[in-house]
Amino acid sequence: MKIYDISMELNPNVFVYKNKPEKKPVFEVTENGYVTETNLSMNLHTGTHIDAPLHMIKDGAAIGAYDLARFFSPAQVLDFTGEKEKISAAALKEKNVKRNVFVILKTKNSEKEYFDPEFIYLDESGAGYLRDQGAIGVGIDALGIERNQPGHPTHKILLGAGIVILEGLRLKGVPEGDYFLAAPPLKLNGYEAAPVRAALIEWDKAD
Amino acid sequence: MKIYDISMELNPNVFVYKNKPEKKPVFEVTENGYVTETNLSMNLHTGTHIDAPLHMIKDGAAIGAYDLARFFSPAQVLDFTGEKEKISAAALKEKNVKRNVFVILKTKNSEKEYFDPEFIYLDESGAGYLRDQGAIGVGIDALGIERNQPGHPTHKILLGAGIVILEGLRLKGVPEGDYFLAAPPLKLNGYEAAPVRAALIEWDKAD
Repeated sequence: MKIYDISMELNPNVFVYKNKPEKKPVFEVTENGYVTETNLSMNLHTGTHIDAPLHMIKDGAAIGAYDLARFFSPAQVLDFTGEKEKISAAALKEKNVKRNVFVILKTKNSEKEYFDPEFIYLDESGAGYLRDQGAIGVGIDALGIERNQPGHPTHKILLGAGIVILEGLRLKGVPEGDYFLAAPPLKLNGYEAAPVRAALIEWDKAD
Repeated sequence: MKIYDISMELNPNVFVYKNKPEKKPVFEVTENGYVTETNLSMNLHTGTHIDAPLHMIKDGAAIGAYDLARFFSPAQVLDFTGEKEKISAAALKEKNVKRNVFVILKTKNSEKEYFDPEFIYLDESGAGYLRDQGAIGVGIDALGIERNQPGHPTHKILLGAGIVILEGLRLKGVPEGDYFLAAPPLKLNGYEAAPVRAALIEWDKAD
């Protein structure tokens, strides 16, 4: 079994969406003799996280509405590191995108350890294509899955179709191909997102 | 594939260790048009979580020192719901505890949706026995793995031997037996614990 850790580390200096200071996690450490305890305060969209429909759809479903099984899924990593602006339906059609898998979009975002406002994103046409392919979920190595699209159509197409969005992945060193995704989000219920530790597992032939 | 969710839900009313109000998670929800965003503030030992040595050992290893593979592991659920006070080496010896697995201790704690100060715990002798069995980790359905043991010997024996402690499990309805544990903690590094969504997976024969 080989495990790829595809998560961002949460620390006070982690890069955050649009570099907004209020999105940085805050840690308060207390020491009492040999006992150490920490309090963590964070935005649910900081670091690697799952978006639920409620994030972008008024009265949409919250994170607790997803069955946990969604986050243990066959997954396909697609390499779009050659794309310079965005991933559209045309680019996706050049790949052999499987049906009914969790699609993981690898871009050159994974090479950057800072917030790039020009991050590669999934455009509206790409979201429609993945919806039509029956994607279980869509993951991307950016803190947002879209940018500069008025009305957030990528979010709305995916979330409106019940497709999980997994943001803030780190995919450097992960080859294109098939994996088993394990990305169980923290167990929240009525909220619009949840932080997650995401991993891709490659089973040995002998397993 | 059958998945058992063995995690506590994090919400403002979740029960916490010793009912300390400062251990309750705090959620701040912001709505801006159709966009909803939430900030979560929580103690790292609230809900289901992993303890690292640093929690109880001065200058001990922090959570980032554990390899992620530790949290994807063969696991054995042992039913101790008949125990009234604690789990000791004698009780463990009556079970066929496997070597080199993540041992999950199910007790009558799982039947209680409140903090019981008399929760069932793993005593010092039990910790020594599991260490000697080469346990990869030890999970329990209590917010602490010990109580009323001066000097925290259970924590120190396990953590001192590099054995992962997984606290705050919910095991009602989970039969004794063999599983695959998936419990990847949030990716923190220099801290003494991390919250986790924990699951037990039963593979279909056909998988």
